Amino acid sequence: MITYKAHIIDTPTPQAFRIIENGYVTVSDEGRVVYAGSQLPATAGELVDFGDRLLIPAFNDLHLHAPQYRNNGLAMDLELLPWLERYTFPEEMKFADTDYARRIYTRFVHELWMQGTMRSAVFATIHPEATCVLADLFRKAGLGAYVGLVAMDRNAPNGLCNTAKEAFAAVSVLDDELGRDGIVRAIVTPRFIPSCSEEMLTTLGRLAKERNLPVQSHLSENRHEIDWVHELEPDATCYGDAYNRYGLFGQTPTLMAHCCYTNDEEMRLMRENGVCIVHCPTSNSNLASGMAPVRRFLDNGIRVALGTDVSGGHYMSMLRVIQYAVQTSKMHFAQSRGSIPFLSLSEAFYLATKSGGSFFGRVGSFEPGYDFDALVIDDSYLNFDRYTLPERIGRFIYIGDDRDIRVRFCQGRELPEPPLVV
Amino acid sequence: MITYKAHIIDTPTPQAFRIIENGYVTVSDEGRVVYAGSQLPATAGELVDFGDRLLIPAFNDLHLHAPQYRNNGLAMDLELLPWLERYTFPEEMKFADTDYARRIYTRFVHELWMQGTMRSAVFATIHPEATCVLADLFRKAGLGAYVGLVAMDRNAPNGLCNTAKEAFAAVSVLDDELGRDGIVRAIVTPRFIPSCSEEMLTTLGRLAKERNLPVQSHLSENRHEIDWVHELEPDATCYGDAYNRYGLFGQTPTLMAHCCYTNDEEMRLMRENGVCIVHCPTSNSNLASGMAPVRRFLDNGIRVALGTDVSGGHYMSMLRVIQYAVQTSKMHFAQSRGSIPFLSLSEAFYLATKSGGSFFGRVGSFEPGYDFDALVIDDSYLNFDRYTLPERIGRFIYIGDDRDIRVRFCQGRELPEPPLVV
Repeated sequence: MITYKAHIIDTPTPQAFRIIENGYVTVSDEGRVVYAGSQLPATAGELVDFGDRLLIPAFNDLHLHAPQYRNNGLAMDLELLPWLERYTFPEEMKFADTDYARRIYTRFVHELWMQGTMRSAVFATIHPEATCVLADLFRKAGLGAYVGLVAMDRNAPNGLCNTAKEAFAAVSVLDDELGRDGIVRAIVTPRFIPSCSEEMLTTLGRLAKERNLPVQSHLSENRHEIDWVHELEPDATCYGDAYNRYGLFGQTPTLMAHCCYTNDEEMRLMRENGVCIVHCPTSNSNLASGMAPVRRFLDNGIRVALGTDVSGGHYMSMLRVIQYAVQTSKMHFAQSRGSIPFLSLSEAFYLATKSGGSFFGRVGSFEPGYDFDALVIDDSYLNFDRYTLPERIGRFIYIGDDRDIRVRFCQGRELPEPPLVV
Repeated sequence: MITYKAHIIDTPTPQAFRIIENGYVTVSDEGRVVYAGSQLPATAGELVDFGDRLLIPAFNDLHLHAPQYRNNGLAMDLELLPWLERYTFPEEMKFADTDYARRIYTRFVHELWMQGTMRSAVFATIHPEATCVLADLFRKAGLGAYVGLVAMDRNAPNGLCNTAKEAFAAVSVLDDELGRDGIVRAIVTPRFIPSCSEEMLTTLGRLAKERNLPVQSHLSENRHEIDWVHELEPDATCYGDAYNRYGLFGQTPTLMAHCCYTNDEEMRLMRENGVCIVHCPTSNSNLASGMAPVRRFLDNGIRVALGTDVSGGHYMSMLRVIQYAVQTSKMHFAQSRGSIPFLSLSEAFYLATKSGGSFFGRVGSFEPGYDFDALVIDDSYLNFDRYTLPERIGRFIYIGDDRDIRVRFCQGRELPEPPLVV
C-alpha cells in the first residue's frame, strides 16, 4: 500500500474534469487504486508527496504502427493508398531483419514511455520474430500493450504478405508466449479489407473466436479506399460489414481506426456490436483523409478512443491528438454553422484516458479498482503566474510536452526510462 | 565578414527546398548574406563550422498578441466574439499596470527567441507605457518587430478604449522614439472594424499616410464578426472595403490576419492593393472560425504570411503553424475531392520564412542581400538513422521543437538568451 499526494485530475465522466486540490490517491500492492480523495485515508501506507505537481491518468494510444516509427515526419505528400505503397510498405519490409526491428522498436518503446503513453494497441508487421522482439521490449519496459502481428495476403508486395496459415500460427504462438496474466497481449490484426483475402479473413475470424482474442483494423479512412472495398466485397452492406461477416467486428472486443466516412448503416452495426472507434485526427489531416464525425459517434452511443496512428500521424504524443480531436470537432462546428457541438477539453481527455483505457480493463481513471496508470506533471515552467488548477491542466494539454512529465506509473509500478538504443 | 558552414536549407522559391549539403553562407559586417553556395568563397572572413547541423532561415510570425501570452492554452471553449469579451479583454486591461506588462512581455519576448522567431508583427494594447516597454524588450533582445499600439474606441470595455487623438499621439511618440533605422518599428493597429469608430479609422488612415507607417488588423475571421461588420458599415462592398475607404488597406504596407471567409470582391481588392494575408490556422481551429482558402489566395496572386495569433493560437512555435497550414489545406483537398491541391511542405515553409519576411525588407532567405536571420538546428536526436537532408528538414518541421534550435541569428547578430524574468 502506498499513497501519493498531489493535485489529482481525472475524468470519471467526460462532462468535466474531477479536480482534487492537494488530494491523495492510495494504491494497493497489486497496483490498483483503492482511494482517491481530499483526505488522507486511515490505511494509507507510505506517503509520497508530489507537492504542487499534477497527478493525471496516463495516456492510452489505441492505434499506431510500431514499424513506421522511422518514418515519423516524412512522406506527407500523398494520400493513404499511394502513401502505403510508396513509403510505408517498403519500410515495413525491412522488419524481416530482426536486428533492424530491435533497433527501431527499442526507440519506439522508449518514445511511448517518454510521451507518457502507458498502454497502446499496436500494429507490428507480418514478421513473427520481429513482433516477438517488440512484445518483449514492452514487457521489459513495463508498458501495457496489445501487440498485433499483421495479417495480409493480397494487394501488397510479396515480401509483406503472409498466408492465412502463417498468420494463424504466428498469432497463436505469440498468444501462448504472452499469455493472459500480463499487460502485454496478442491481438488479431487484419491490415484492412483490401489486403486480406476471403481465406485470410475467415481464418482470422476463427482465430479470434477460438482463442477469444480481440481484433484491430482500419475502417472507412479514405474515399478511394472505401470505393476499393466496395469493388472487392460487393455483397457487404458497408465496409464494416466486410469485417462483420467474418466475425471480425465486435464478436470479440474490436478496435476500428479512423471511420472518417462511416455511414449510418456502419454506425448501426458498430453500436449493435460494441465496436470501438479509434479516432486519429493527426493522421487524418496528414494523409488528407478527412474529418471523422466524432460527435455523431458519441451521440449514437458508440465508444471512441484516440490514436496517434504513427506514422500517418506525425507525432507520438497523445497531447497533440487531444488538441487535434477538439480542433477537428470545431471545424465540424464551424461548417455546420454551430449546429454540431464541438468536443470539450474534458471530453477529449476522457477519450484519451478512460475511454481508451477501457479496452485494457479498468484503466484510465483514479476511481477505486482502476489500475494506477498515472503521470506526475511538473508544470512549473508553464505555471509562471497564479493559474487555477483547471487552467493548469488546460495549459499542460495545449502547450506542455514530455519535458513536463516527471514520473510515470503503469499498474502501480513506477517505470524507469527504458533504453534508447539496443 | 564571417562564413558559416553547415547544411544550408532555405526556400528562395516556394516550389522546393534549396538544399546545399556542407555549404557555406558568408555574411557581411552589416549582417547581410553576401554568398551562399557549396564552395568556400575566396573572401570568407572567419570560418565557423557547424558540422552536421542544419542552417535554416529564422521564422517570421506576422500576427500575434503579446498581452495574450498569459492566456496561451486557456479559454478554448468559445468562438471569437464571446472569447474576446470574456477572456481576452479582461486580460488586456491588466496592461494598464506597467509592472505587470513588463513581467508578461519579458516572458513573451523570451519565448519568441526560444521558438526561433526572429521577426514578428505584434499587437500590444492601448497602453502607451506598456507598449514602449514591449518595444524596448524587443530592442534589448535584438529581435525585429513591428509593435502595434492598439486603437479601439467602441464595443469594448471602457478600460480598453482610447480616443482617436490618444491613439494618434501614442503611435506618433512610439514611431519617433523607435525611428526607422532599427529593426523595431511602429505599426498602425486598428483592432478591427467593430471596435473602431469612423473617427478612429479616419484618424488612423491619416496617421498611416502622413508618417508612411504600415498597418495591421483583422479581417473576415468569423461569420458572426462579418455579419456585425455588415451592420456597422452597410455601405462597404465587403469587410475589407471598410478598411479601404479609410486608407487602411494597402495604401501603405498592410497585414490582414485570418481571411477565413474572404470573398471574390475582397480578394480582388487585396490583390489590387497588395495587401498581405496572415494565415493563422491554429487560431482558426481553436476559435472554431473556419479554414482559410490559402490555395485560392496564392492562385489569385495574393501574398500570404503565417502567424501564431497567440493566444487564439495556443502555441508560439511557427513549426506548429507550418504543420497546421499544410493540414488545413489538406482538409480543403479532401472536401473538394482532390480538386484543390494542398500546400507542399516547402510552400508552407516559404510562407513562414521568405514570404512573411518580405514585410521586414529582404528577410527570410539566404540569397545575396538578405539579412542573415538564421537558426542552427541540431537534429541529432531526430536523425538517429541515415536520413537524407530532405527527410531531416521534414522531420525537424513535423517533430522537432525549440530543443533542437542551438543558435539564433537576427540580422547577422547571434542573439544570447534574453531574460525570462524581470
